[in-house]
Formats: sequence, C-alpha cells, structure tokens
Amino acid sequence: MAGYDPLIVKDDRVLLLDQRRLPATVEYMEAKSLQDICFAIKEMVVRGAPLIGIVAAFGVYLGIRDSYDKVDFKNRLKNSKEALSKTRPTAVNLFFALDRMESVAKEKLDILPLQKLINKMRATAFALWDEQKKQDKLIGSFGADYLKGKKRILTHCNTGTLATGGIGTALGIIKTMHERGQIELVYVDETRPYLQGSRLTAFELQQEGIGYRVVTDNSCGMLMRKGIVDAVIVGADRIAKNGDVANKIGTYCLAVMAKKHGIPFVVAAPESTIDRSIASMREISIEERSSDEVLRIGDVDIAPPGSKALHYAFDLTDADLISAIITENGVYEEFDF
Amino acid sequence: MAGYDPLIVKDDRVLLLDQRRLPATVEYMEAKSLQDICFAIKEMVVRGAPLIGIVAAFGVYLGIRDSYDKVDFKNRLKNSKEALSKTRPTAVNLFFALDRMESVAKEKLDILPLQKLINKMRATAFALWDEQKKQDKLIGSFGADYLKGKKRILTHCNTGTLATGGIGTALGIIKTMHERGQIELVYVDETRPYLQGSRLTAFELQQEGIGYRVVTDNSCGMLMRKGIVDAVIVGADRIAKNGDVANKIGTYCLAVMAKKHGIPFVVAAPESTIDRSIASMREISIEERSSDEVLRIGDVDIAPPGSKALHYAFDLTDADLISAIITENGVYEEFDF
Repeated sequence: MAGYDPLIVKDDRVLLLDQRRLPATVEYMEAKSLQDICFAIKEMVVRGAPLIGIVAAFGVYLGIRDSYDKVDFKNRLKNSKEALSKTRPTAVNLFFALDRMESVAKEKLDILPLQKLINKMRATAFALWDEQKKQDKLIGSFGADYLKGKKRILTHCNTGTLATGGIGTALGIIKTMHERGQIELVYVDETRPYLQGSRLTAFELQQEGIGYRVVTDNSCGMLMRKGIVDAVIVGADRIAKNGDVANKIGTYCLAVMAKKHGIPFVVAAPESTIDRSIASMREISIEERSSDEVLRIGDVDIAPPGSKALHYAFDLTDADLISAIITENGVYEEFDF
Repeated sequence: MAGYDPLIVKDDRVLLLDQRRLPATVEYMEAKSLQDICFAIKEMVVRGAPLIGIVAAFGVYLGIRDSYDKVDFKNRLKNSKEALSKTRPTAVNLFFALDRMESVAKEKLDILPLQKLINKMRATAFALWDEQKKQDKLIGSFGADYLKGKKRILTHCNTGTLATGGIGTALGIIKTMHERGQIELVYVDETRPYLQGSRLTAFELQQEGIGYRVVTDNSCGMLMRKGIVDAVIVGADRIAKNGDVANKIGTYCLAVMAKKHGIPFVVAAPESTIDRSIASMREISIEERSSDEVLRIGDVDIAPPGSKALHYAFDLTDADLISAIITENGVYEEFDF
C-alpha cells in the first residue's frame, strides 16, 4: 500500500483521501453513508475513472448495509444505483461497477440469507478493487518491458494510484520502470485547467522517490526538440475499435509532437476502456465544461471579470499517432479491437 | 490612444501602467527618476520588448534632465545607459533604444546649448515611440490584407498595446481586422506560466470590444481539429536570417499543429526583430528560468513543496512551419533576410 491510498476501508469505515486539497493537505474524509459517497464523487473528493467505479461499489455497499429484510434490500439497491448514476454520468467505469454490484445482488438474492448477502456485496466491492490492482500491475509490467531503455518519460494528467486505487495505468508503468532502475527523469505536464499533473502526479512521484520536473503543457515541443524526452505515456478515457483515443485535453498535441520527433507515444489503459461499439473517435462528441474551471486558480482570477473561456475537457487522438496501446492483456501495436 | 496606455507622458510626468496587477487593478505608477524606470523594467511593471525600449529611452531622459552643465550631462548619460543595460540584459530593443539615445546625444552635444540638448533627448524618446506606433499600424494593415476572409483567429501571449505602446504586432493585426469587420472570434491562449494571454490579451480585447474566449494552451489541437480556427497569429522575440523564429514557449506546438491542419501560421514583428547575424535558430540557446514562475500562481502553490520545474521561457519554430512573416515593410512568404 502507498502512503497515500485514495481509499481506505478498515473494518466497516470507508475513508476517502480528499484530492481537492492535494498537494497542500493530505486529509481523509469518512464516508458514512451512500449520500457521503455521492457527494465525494460529484464534488471530486475522488476522481479518476477506475477509482470512481471502486468508490461507487462501496457506495452501494453502504447503501444496502442496514437493510432489515430482502424487500428493503431490493429497494435500497435500486435507490443506491439511481443516486450514484447521477453523480458523474459520463464515467464509464461508474456504470460498469454499478452493474457488477447489481448482477451479484440479483444472482445471490434468493440463495443467501440477508447478512451473508450483505457480506457478499462488501466482498464484491473489494473484488473490484483487487481486480484493478492486478490489472495495473500487469499494465505496469507490459509497459516497462515495452519501454526498456527509455529513461526520460513525459506524462500528462494523473493516471496513478490517485486515479485507479492500484499503482495506476500510465503512471503505474513509470513506477514499474523505476523499480527496475529504468527511470532517469519524469516530465510532469501540469495539465491545465485542473493541474492534475502538478498537483497529483508530482505528489505521487515525490512520495515514491522518483525524480521529476513539472513542465507547462506548452513546453512539450521544446523538450522534444532538445532531445531530452525518450517516450510519452498517457492514459485513456475511451478507446475506439480502430485505436483512436479520447483522453485529457492536451493529449492530441503531445501525440502529434511525439510523432514529429520520432518519440514513442504510448497509451496505457485497462481493456474495459476499449469501446468496441465505436468504430472511430469521429463518432464521439466532446464535453464542453464551465468557464470557471479555466478562469480561476484557487482564489486567483486569471482573466478580466466578464471573460469567458472555451473549455473542452478531452480531446481526440488518431490511432496512427499511437505507437502502442498497453492493457492488462498485453501490448497492441496494431489496433482492430 | 487606448484607455489603457502602458505609458503616459504628460508635461514632464512619466506614468507607467503596472502590468503586474492586471487585470484585477488598473493602476499607474509615476516614474520620477532613472531609478524608478530601472525598477519598473526589472520588476516587470512594464514588459514587452518594444515597450521596454521606449520606456528605457524615457529613463535616459529622466537620467539627464537635471544636468547642470555638459560635463555633468555626459556623466549622467553614461550612468543612465549603464543602469538601464542591467535591467533586462536579454532584451534586444532595450539596447537599440539606448544606442539611439546615446548617438543623438553625441551628435548634438557640441551643437546645441544644454537646455536644447535636453529637449532633444526628450524629443528622441517620443520619436522612438512614434516610430513604433507607425510600424504597428503598418504591420496591422499588411496583416489584415493578408488574412482577408479569416474570421476566427488564435493568438498566443500578449503582443498588443501593453507590449509595444502602439496597437501591437500580432494583436495589432487582430485589431485592424476587427476595425474592418473581419473578426468573428479570437481564441486567447492563456500562455502559461505568466498568463500574458488571459491576463493581458483578454484585457485588451475586452477594452476594444472584440469577442474572445480564453483557452488553455493545450486546447489548440482540439480547436483545430473541430475546424473552428481559421488562422494563428503570434509575435516573435527574434527571427533568424532563414526565417526561423524564437518566441514565447508554446509557439512551436502551435506552428506544428497549424501545419498539420492546413491553417495559416503568421508571425508579426518589426524588422528590428530580424537578426541577420544568426543563420538559423539552431544557433540560439534558450534561457532556462526559475521554477517559482511555474509552481506558484498568485498565492497558490500548484505543486507539492520541494517540487522543481523545468522552465524554458521561449521555444524555436522552424521557418518551414511559418506561412508568412509580416513586418512594417510588408509580407514575406519566402525567407532569406
């Protein structure tokens, strides 16, 4: 376990590391109820698609824990799923986790006595978490093999423990490379507007004792042309059948610049990120988000009052810019999922 | 005159708009002495290469104004030049302005009586400023002709009145296009780490009543692939004989992305920016600046304590990525200066 687990479940207490306050403050919030979990997901106490799924599973557990009979259990299960669905409606992993919890409940409802059923729900949430940890380890290992000899890695956003509850995906590869003595330096894109890079990825690397430098997102070209970047590793929010990737805003630029400079551009994500129902990313529409998220940093207004931003949270990267997609199943260098 | 002139000289009072406090506060500082001007340049009360030159010229004037005889004048001239040279030693325009003031002084020293000599120095500072205003107007007009039919313009950093004392270079083109009814929308790159885009360019556009949206630097790829950017216009800190350009960090990425999407990429700068002594930008070394400028925004720490940044203030853009370089002499589409 890292010293900064985003989720701690001890006996029946569910503790969430408040990521909004990182890196200034490391503080856990206790989630005592379904409502607390809904708040934590909606208000981004926790973030990162895989972690949201795992926390939501524990949300369902808290929602059904005090059921007094099976009719009550069924009602509570329905309410929990409904409430959690509304927290971050675009997060695929959230729905994956809720469906898993529901299907286990339905399968065991008539078989197990009430208390055993409740225990099974708790165990299922833990199982989801364990699966994520195992997936992350496999991704880390495949990635470190693939990137053998690459020492100076640029990464974007946060794809670590704080995003998955395991070692992370793209950042998990970097940690695995570090364990193997492969890492000289990590360039951490600050990742505007939320600064997940400078706030969260830098925090994880510092905790792990891995050397890093924070860089502004607009530095990638200069770093690459100086010849001081050996590879770029990013995560993915969604991967199309043809290998196109939707990910944090800024990913597309990185991929184009890496291609221009002949630098490997690697995407790391669990298989569940691959959405075979989408032929290519041309079919996806990208969420436009609030101006405020760009125009204020902490208490500081960075533009004149009355200004508006145009804020896309994600962008699209064409498959032909990607050197490899790495999942828990291995390394894909040609994409036809 | 704009309502936000970075420099106002009325009778013998020299007033400087404190750009460090924009956009929150519009406040002028009175520079009563050479020392005040040195402070203002060093501490970035004023910034922008052409504006620094003009303000330095008035600094020389304040330095020699109270001379009691010609020997004293000569001493004061020497001291003024020395003190101002040390404020921002990499600013080419600063030295250009100091040399101009010195050569006029030397030319007139034996010809004019003391008070007329002092008046001539004041007039020379004004003449430098007027030349900049005329250059900006010409750049604006050539640029607006060249970009006829382009309505949605992306720009980077601040290249406006706050940088030159005239209408600006790249931003001057945008203002001229706006006067001609050519502009639909300006995308303002926030321009990390100093945020000259969101703080200063957005401020100028708001004052001019030109429609704009602030965007994070990492958004350029997404905006271009959506087909909502018609042209990119940036300034230049230095242009090599072959047309390579050194400019604010992030320029290179914009140029690569514009090329990929078939979008015109235009550089606007006075002829004095062209440095014929440099064959190509490969010969230039880029200044690495302090971590703090990346890691703090106002009072907010954006990375864990103990973090370091790697901070290049400028980057290099190859001539073959540039559609046109526009100066007060016209539009260059092939570069051999």
